[in-house]
Amino acid sequence: MKLIVQKYGGTSVANADAIKKAASKIIKTKEEGNQVVVVVSAMGSRTDELINLAVELTDTPEPREMDMLLSTGERETMSLMAMYLKNQGYDAISLTGSQAGIITTSKHGQAEIEEITGDRVKEGLNKGKVVIVAGFQGFNRDTREITTLGRGGSDATAVALAASLNADVCEIYTDVEGVFTSDPKIVKNAKLIKEITYEEMLEMASSGAKVLMARSVQFGKRYNVPIKVSSTFKDGEGTIVKDKVMEQAIISGVTHNDKEIKFTLFGVPDQPGIAAKVFRPLSDIGINVDMIVQNVSKENKSDISFTAPLNQLSSVQGTLGPAVEELGAEGLDIDESIARVSLIGAGMKSESGIAAKMFETLGNANININMISTSPIRISCVIEKKNVEKALNILHDAFIETS
Amino acid sequence: MKLIVQKYGGTSVANADAIKKAASKIIKTKEEGNQVVVVVSAMGSRTDELINLAVELTDTPEPREMDMLLSTGERETMSLMAMYLKNQGYDAISLTGSQAGIITTSKHGQAEIEEITGDRVKEGLNKGKVVIVAGFQGFNRDTREITTLGRGGSDATAVALAASLNADVCEIYTDVEGVFTSDPKIVKNAKLIKEITYEEMLEMASSGAKVLMARSVQFGKRYNVPIKVSSTFKDGEGTIVKDKVMEQAIISGVTHNDKEIKFTLFGVPDQPGIAAKVFRPLSDIGINVDMIVQNVSKENKSDISFTAPLNQLSSVQGTLGPAVEELGAEGLDIDESIARVSLIGAGMKSESGIAAKMFETLGNANININMISTSPIRISCVIEKKNVEKALNILHDAFIETS
Repeated sequence: MKLIVQKYGGTSVANADAIKKAASKIIKTKEEGNQVVVVVSAMGSRTDELINLAVELTDTPEPREMDMLLSTGERETMSLMAMYLKNQGYDAISLTGSQAGIITTSKHGQAEIEEITGDRVKEGLNKGKVVIVAGFQGFNRDTREITTLGRGGSDATAVALAASLNADVCEIYTDVEGVFTSDPKIVKNAKLIKEITYEEMLEMASSGAKVLMARSVQFGKRYNVPIKVSSTFKDGEGTIVKDKVMEQAIISGVTHNDKEIKFTLFGVPDQPGIAAKVFRPLSDIGINVDMIVQNVSKENKSDISFTAPLNQLSSVQGTLGPAVEELGAEGLDIDESIARVSLIGAGMKSESGIAAKMFETLGNANININMISTSPIRISCVIEKKNVEKALNILHDAFIETS
Repeated sequence: MKLIVQKYGGTSVANADAIKKAASKIIKTKEEGNQVVVVVSAMGSRTDELINLAVELTDTPEPREMDMLLSTGERETMSLMAMYLKNQGYDAISLTGSQAGIITTSKHGQAEIEEITGDRVKEGLNKGKVVIVAGFQGFNRDTREITTLGRGGSDATAVALAASLNADVCEIYTDVEGVFTSDPKIVKNAKLIKEITYEEMLEMASSGAKVLMARSVQFGKRYNVPIKVSSTFKDGEGTIVKDKVMEQAIISGVTHNDKEIKFTLFGVPDQPGIAAKVFRPLSDIGINVDMIVQNVSKENKSDISFTAPLNQLSSVQGTLGPAVEELGAEGLDIDESIARVSLIGAGMKSESGIAAKMFETLGNANININMISTSPIRISCVIEKKNVEKALNILHDAFIETS
């Protein structure tokens, strides 16, 4: 008997019909002789509706109250799913984050899972029940408060539950068929990836692939839980994210992220510790800075560029603005017209010339490269946003189609 | 400094604007130097929307899951209210039923409040916060489950909280201006009652007045908490329900209930214990039987009539059907075309001739009386449903207008 954790996202439980469809998948898994734990998101756009209600009342909702509000969304879904399964003759019980023992840090809206006690989950499984757990939420012991996990929180709940229960697999059901070699909306030839390593998936997620959030993949990697991503609405094999794959492609995916901005600090005095002075304040307020590039010093001054998420523009500006003068920098430039394209592949480690070929491919298409950063299994180039579609297609042609 | 518990019903928190309006009343009370605890219902028709979702999935929703589902409604309101008050500069905290320590029996959907520990409520008040509590819900210690209190549950939460906190008054804000001498939709001359005793209000509630449920009034009576009913939308004195009133009217109100059915068992053998055999099984399945009348025995057989709520028709039928034969009764008649009109007044105790005058008034208007029942402060007559409007108006004219 296998233990399978399944997670159904918002579109997979958007209304009564979708819930029935998702339930049929749960029932099939149960009928095949497995123990099943299900993690659900809020129905369709419910979370956005709740946020809109809050915004009608205040621009600065108290994070603790926001968590109280938003945590109701998944609770609606979990109880509807449990009552439908019961109605279909399958014993089921719904559990809130706290009932499932999902213990988190205390930071409202961005809590991290610290531990899963899961007593009531195990109790339910031992009684032969399908256990339905509200995603995206947990409980902090010290404050005795309900917390939410922030974006991608329900996936994180599912993978962390799978890890703590030592499940055989964590299945993420969503509105796409799996992870593709590139965004199928932009690259017509994008293909479904059958297997991909945690490492590659992490790089994909953090460089723009939206299917799985990096935090869930990290959980999977740390506890070696295979994660399967597939569609609630179509039958198909989906994508398996795991430790090792059978046939390692050189390049697994071509991703893009056009939700970033490039900041450049000009003429920063070239002294030891200056970079820390720039980035410590940003890190302190929780800004995810990426692709830091510091150019060669001229006349004891250098330029520092980095990218940050578009939605953190005002926070970065607020923090960096005063710093410019303090640091003795000559100026701050903000460029919103940029995007990042990346090649990801674990096979890159044993293959030389990938970077050169990438730069050539972009150059031949007259696409100017603005910044470059690399990891052992990723090469990213910042280009002009208007060139994203062209860049993705030519890179996909050059690295995936021909492989 | 007074401690005031306020309760805002569904229409009073139906949307952002209504929440702001209700908040302005809370703020006014706080500004007057009082400590304030607020109990909120779900927004507008939210509870019905959730029930409809459940009904789309199953005809027989598991009560435990239904409670999980419905308890989210009040949680939405409470957090929205708390964040709006904070936004307006008033420190506030929202608490779920369990967080507020509302300990109930374990019966899902119809739990009764057993105790209110209220530690976090007091903690909040001591810190100068407005404490917002989700109405209609509690927690059972043995099962560790969330429960709901059934209809009128949020009022019960408010009055029970007021009792446990030894509050000065429990203010119920709703969409009507208070308790009227009769239903203003039917009786144009109906007047707002300024003061009414718990006893009278109990009789009013259980004979058709919908403003306050009997269970809340019982709590108020037991712990002597004055309950004030008034409108969220209009300024006004409202109605105060309390122990003793200054000027006791002979008749305080004329009520009606057209949501009942009359059952008659014909030719029941007249033996000791036969009534118990009829009513014990009904009581066992929780049916509120009312106005039991057993007529004089003829040839050792008698007829037994009683009324029950319309929505319990099928349960009563299911239980009584088999009993008819078993008891040796000759038949069962079900009459859905009836309604009950009642006169209520504590002054009745010291005034004779009220009943006779009521029967005459109805008789003069050619309204046939089908059944009669009385309490020390109430006289009820079952009449044909089609005569309700006429009966209420002539009774109101005869007993209230002239008084």
